[in-house]
Amino acid sequence: MKHALSVTREQDFAAWYQAVITEADMAEDSGVRGCMVIRPWGYGIWERIQALLDARIKASGHENCYFPIFIPLSYFEKEAEHVEGFAKEMAVVTHHRLKGEAGRLVVDPDAKLEEPLVVRPTSETVIGTAFARWTQSWRDLPLMINQWANVVRWEMRTRMFLRTSEFLWQEGHTAHATRDEAEAETRMALEMYRSFAEDALAMPVIAGEKPENERFPGAVVTYSIEAMMQDGKALQAGTSHFLGQNFATAQNIRFQDKDGQTAFAWTTSWGLSTRMIGGIIMVHGDDDGLRLPPVVAPRQVVIVPMLRDNDEDEAVLDYCKAIAADVARQSAFGEPVRVLVDTKATKAAGKRWGWVKKGAPIIVEVGGRDLAAGNVSALRRDRLYTPEGKLASAIVARDAFAASVAATLEEIQTNLHGEAKARLEVAIRRDVTDFAGVEAFFAEGVVRPGWLEVEWARPTGAELDQVIERLKALKLTLRNVPLDAAPAAGVCVFTGAPAVERVLVGRAY
Amino acid sequence: MKHALSVTREQDFAAWYQAVITEADMAEDSGVRGCMVIRPWGYGIWERIQALLDARIKASGHENCYFPIFIPLSYFEKEAEHVEGFAKEMAVVTHHRLKGEAGRLVVDPDAKLEEPLVVRPTSETVIGTAFARWTQSWRDLPLMINQWANVVRWEMRTRMFLRTSEFLWQEGHTAHATRDEAEAETRMALEMYRSFAEDALAMPVIAGEKPENERFPGAVVTYSIEAMMQDGKALQAGTSHFLGQNFATAQNIRFQDKDGQTAFAWTTSWGLSTRMIGGIIMVHGDDDGLRLPPVVAPRQVVIVPMLRDNDEDEAVLDYCKAIAADVARQSAFGEPVRVLVDTKATKAAGKRWGWVKKGAPIIVEVGGRDLAAGNVSALRRDRLYTPEGKLASAIVARDAFAASVAATLEEIQTNLHGEAKARLEVAIRRDVTDFAGVEAFFAEGVVRPGWLEVEWARPTGAELDQVIERLKALKLTLRNVPLDAAPAAGVCVFTGAPAVERVLVGRAY
Repeated sequence: MKHALSVTREQDFAAWYQAVITEADMAEDSGVRGCMVIRPWGYGIWERIQALLDARIKASGHENCYFPIFIPLSYFEKEAEHVEGFAKEMAVVTHHRLKGEAGRLVVDPDAKLEEPLVVRPTSETVIGTAFARWTQSWRDLPLMINQWANVVRWEMRTRMFLRTSEFLWQEGHTAHATRDEAEAETRMALEMYRSFAEDALAMPVIAGEKPENERFPGAVVTYSIEAMMQDGKALQAGTSHFLGQNFATAQNIRFQDKDGQTAFAWTTSWGLSTRMIGGIIMVHGDDDGLRLPPVVAPRQVVIVPMLRDNDEDEAVLDYCKAIAADVARQSAFGEPVRVLVDTKATKAAGKRWGWVKKGAPIIVEVGGRDLAAGNVSALRRDRLYTPEGKLASAIVARDAFAASVAATLEEIQTNLHGEAKARLEVAIRRDVTDFAGVEAFFAEGVVRPGWLEVEWARPTGAELDQVIERLKALKLTLRNVPLDAAPAAGVCVFTGAPAVERVLVGRAY
Repeated sequence: MKHALSVTREQDFAAWYQAVITEADMAEDSGVRGCMVIRPWGYGIWERIQALLDARIKASGHENCYFPIFIPLSYFEKEAEHVEGFAKEMAVVTHHRLKGEAGRLVVDPDAKLEEPLVVRPTSETVIGTAFARWTQSWRDLPLMINQWANVVRWEMRTRMFLRTSEFLWQEGHTAHATRDEAEAETRMALEMYRSFAEDALAMPVIAGEKPENERFPGAVVTYSIEAMMQDGKALQAGTSHFLGQNFATAQNIRFQDKDGQTAFAWTTSWGLSTRMIGGIIMVHGDDDGLRLPPVVAPRQVVIVPMLRDNDEDEAVLDYCKAIAADVARQSAFGEPVRVLVDTKATKAAGKRWGWVKKGAPIIVEVGGRDLAAGNVSALRRDRLYTPEGKLASAIVARDAFAASVAATLEEIQTNLHGEAKARLEVAIRRDVTDFAGVEAFFAEGVVRPGWLEVEWARPTGAELDQVIERLKALKLTLRNVPLDAAPAAGVCVFTGAPAVERVLVGRAY
């Protein structure tokens, strides 16, 4: 069977990933080092993520704010561990003026800043400074805010959506009067991400605690959701950090409690980024391109009029618009169905496959014959082919199509989730009990080995370092300790000591 | 009559402006030079602006994208006029790493970028580069995109919302096959801003063409909407630029037309920013703080429970929530009414005035007595006082309140617009016919002199420079040539030559 992309997942997963992005017009190289242009179809997915996640963030009591993109260098010195950890590869603004010189533009050496400004890699330091100003009494707490913003981390090796120097994200930041409250908040954010991934993105994920070495610098506990890509690799798709009093101490976020005593607040932070779009591609895409879960598809139904440059065209177009109006009156997932009539001046023949590659959930072609018969020719992106390998487009009466569209979209959402869930469950093995088994599993030469969930003793310090080194040799990392894993009953696969819990091991993006 | 702010508009307009921002918790100094923190109430207004304007942008056929925040220095050299004009005071990234040195963090001299990166002051250059990639045939046109983004212009003297080094905006960018189409697009964007300001922000504006010296660098025509603040100054609140083929030539945006000939595209750009929030304050605010047009108020109705730390509190709270639920079922301006029960742990006494200062359109207090009688005590922000100078709160039956809330909100919107419109109309004088009259008008020592609309011959070059110098001595600028002004019939107030049109003259932010 011939597919729409020039490369399949089997052949070269990385090349396939890039081909999906290009062929679906999602993003492209900007010509600016490490930065991409997010094109309308890619950005439309981000807008859907924003709208849906923002509603959850607000419903759980958080308010949106905006903080400066620039953070004075000295702010990073306050939280030493934070600096040592990752805050080094950052874009630094040192000057504030260009000038003409011999017909060229150059940086004006006279316009050097007294203190360099870092382009935010994350906003704990600048938001913590504001929290310190806003917090006097227990009455001021909790502070629960969120920001949608661009951040920059200077990456040497970039890959679209997954790792770019500039990316878009939301970062939640909260401060609480008690440890319990802050811990509950951290878990709330994790659960918000988990349910969002499952429900909106049809993306099964494992929620759990990151091992010590994978914690956010300065955090006491870091949780993540981990999704499995079709090549078996893990994608960390959202993180939530319990920061204890570390940042509050460094930034002097103090308050008077009900008894008049001064105490440091307990803080959290949590983020989810455009990286998630890479996850959607690698979880749901197939050899014909992207497949979008209807909940986050910018357009759920696309109608392609088959125009022939003749007298009938106008009637066909009117017919398409009338169908679109019917469809837009339907409601799926509690919102009006998003429908588009593709009137671009390109040829109809290429259009349908264009929308297949873009992953529109339902694609409809309408020509003169359909108009005469009151029909449409409908294609479901999740079931593109018949068992015989033919395109599974179905002729449906116009009214029946409009009446069924919401149910079909909901079925597609469920199908995509089910497919991915089945893949994930098969790909996690839980029966390996020693390190030789780990080596064997990942050395098998299988293209998609998946993950292991193994028992371990949660070693720390030097002992943990040794474990990480051994895993590194196999290109493996510890992903997380799943919250809903079975209790440990045996011995640690790494140390042989009595196991205390179960941890996921895998390759990762 | 004592007012809620410590300074009135009469006493010191600039101090009053800052007091509104502080007392309404809209924004604050961030500690980072020229950058502010936009707090939830201020950001909530921006979110409303985004939602409403974005819907108009999309409805007129534009799609959202995202382009890099960094623009290589060399991109600015392509469009020479653009560079000479304003693109000089900009934040420049020169390094990509910090390092520890003697216990401090410093910029790592080994991590100097080969080519400096400018933090975007606007995105014509980087978007034009993409347009050049996307444009081969007339079939690819028009390109109609928009971006919501942060931009940075290094400002020496900043004022919250009005002029900050970093600000948030939308920038529309389009490319067309013909001059007519691009001109129509430029006017479409202007009309979109005009109607948005009038309808959503209740802000009367004058739409017109900027004089030559006030054009966007590289533009052939720049249009603006100008709003009048309560101190009589103008605020340029949105601009739309017809760029001709200037940027297309510099950036090589070419296409093959229907006849197979290669031609440069015609481009436009248009933007509206967080500056508009400053405009809302200065158009609608009064000596008790902000007054928000209901269409853009983050919360349209705020219910303050008067709790007394006794057994009755729970019943009062439940009663408030029930009223809020009734109100949320109402629809105003085609959307559900946005209502909040203020349950913060601060004292009720201060709460109502807090919401007055924040400008919530309808503020409701509910205590035990109201609960017993089935009433609420409602206050309209646009009519805070009785003619006798008492607070005009009204006791209303709960059901009647909920049933009337939508109509009241719509009335408040109309009232605020009417007030501002009346002020604007009185403040524009059109009968001055010579420069002595101009001098007399603005020298009168009146606090709010307003604007003059005068006839002029549209001088250019050195003659225009002279006009600008003469106006500058009076701290005046040419605002715009109103599109709907009467035709000119007399002589130019500046040159005495036969007049060709009418132009607005005023002080400006």
